[in-house]
Amino acid sequence: MSGALAIRWNGAPVAQIPALGRGLHYGDGVFRTVLLHEGRVIAMEAQLDKLVADAAAIGIRPPSIDLLREELGAVTSFGAAAIKLLLVRAGEQRGYKPASDVADRLLIVYPPPPAASAHAIEGIHAIRSPVTMATQPLLAGIKHLNRLEQVLASRDWPEGVAEAILGDDRGTPVCATRANLFWVRHGVLHTPALDRCGIAGVTRSRVLALAEAAGIECRIGSQPWSALLAADEVFVCGSLIGIWPLRALDAHCYQAQRPMTRRLQAALGHPTHVHYLSPR
Amino acid sequence: MSGALAIRWNGAPVAQIPALGRGLHYGDGVFRTVLLHEGRVIAMEAQLDKLVADAAAIGIRPPSIDLLREELGAVTSFGAAAIKLLLVRAGEQRGYKPASDVADRLLIVYPPPPAASAHAIEGIHAIRSPVTMATQPLLAGIKHLNRLEQVLASRDWPEGVAEAILGDDRGTPVCATRANLFWVRHGVLHTPALDRCGIAGVTRSRVLALAEAAGIECRIGSQPWSALLAADEVFVCGSLIGIWPLRALDAHCYQAQRPMTRRLQAALGHPTHVHYLSPR
Repeated sequence: MSGALAIRWNGAPVAQIPALGRGLHYGDGVFRTVLLHEGRVIAMEAQLDKLVADAAAIGIRPPSIDLLREELGAVTSFGAAAIKLLLVRAGEQRGYKPASDVADRLLIVYPPPPAASAHAIEGIHAIRSPVTMATQPLLAGIKHLNRLEQVLASRDWPEGVAEAILGDDRGTPVCATRANLFWVRHGVLHTPALDRCGIAGVTRSRVLALAEAAGIECRIGSQPWSALLAADEVFVCGSLIGIWPLRALDAHCYQAQRPMTRRLQAALGHPTHVHYLSPR
Repeated sequence: MSGALAIRWNGAPVAQIPALGRGLHYGDGVFRTVLLHEGRVIAMEAQLDKLVADAAAIGIRPPSIDLLREELGAVTSFGAAAIKLLLVRAGEQRGYKPASDVADRLLIVYPPPPAASAHAIEGIHAIRSPVTMATQPLLAGIKHLNRLEQVLASRDWPEGVAEAILGDDRGTPVCATRANLFWVRHGVLHTPALDRCGIAGVTRSRVLALAEAAGIECRIGSQPWSALLAADEVFVCGSLIGIWPLRALDAHCYQAQRPMTRRLQAALGHPTHVHYLSPR
């Protein structure tokens, strides 16, 4: 099990999983990746809530949140880790038609990301991906196991590039390969709608909630690429990375002052960049 | 390994596979399902050729066809079987970005489909699926492991329904859940283009080649659903099923005489329905 600190299949330690499962053969499952920090899973309840909602959305009956919480609790002794939780439709028969709505549970404990990320304070260089995301409203927002678009969009980045922003077939930016997208214009916080494609991350929801609580005007909606270039600040966010501002998108550079991004980073308090931020 | 007669991972017998593989986590692989009949793999060369082409199309370096042929040859002693061959990008690290272009090989021997299929002669009742296929030209035609649309489209079929026909977002029919689609109108054989979505099956290519060899005019192109209703004959085809005519699409019934379908069934000579057909 190179690369993982622990693997549990339906609660039991394993190194391998059944070869006939519907996760491998069809991507018939959903997942979340969560951050374990100082023995505590960041935003655990929101993560488990979204995991079971995503499972239900593709017709998989999720296990109880109590059981998932218990299995997560059993690995918090690792202290710090990136933990991936998968719910995969059970069954080993050949053929697309699901014979079951029962979920198998796969929990993988990976080493944690670096404790402090320079990306959070210095910003990243992102590119516009040549991959256009397909429109599938039945799967939009769901973190399912069909992720070939993200694989294709993660290839061939020039040196120094840390993310790629993907758009949809209407010419509007949607998300990064492993993060959600926000931008700020005239004090208003914007993020794309995810009703046609993209993944609705838990950190995206948390950022929106924190912004609203702070009295920041938020707008969810699709806008053209030009809106990203006209933005005062742009950032991407995710459960493992927290908030990474964009220093540049392709050849377009953003200002080094990022008051709204910094304010939201402080509010989010993500462990990988909290040390960079002044106390609130 | 319930449901399988044999499983080989990179040539070695196994019951399980690594839990961290990119097939499960991202669907980062391709496959074919082939029919073993009387110890011989039907259309083996065409199947292997398409398998390696599909792998290359998503940036996976395929193994040599000689090796694949050898590993298939090692299971022909089962006599009759449905054999699934997967090429999955190797690597166990977390993250979408591929670190390798090497392929792991998974070969699964399943029990064969029924030796003779009434569907081939009596025809099937198909429905129009409520699932609209997403447009992704980068993946169109490729038999990759992201198959959630097929899973969603295989659910909730009314009693007696044997296939569902999926369309794209332009309102044109594309394929069935596990088969390609053809129709006949005024003696011309039509099949949808697969440059935006859908899987290009080997049996589809064989049917087109057989039709052309028989002097039948063929047209590959997208047409509205009304073309299916106006057709004289409609059929679906696949490597395991051969050719199944449509008896009905939703409430629309087709004529019982299907001269072109029967001619192509005879030319294809698929083992599951060859016994129904008069000698050529």
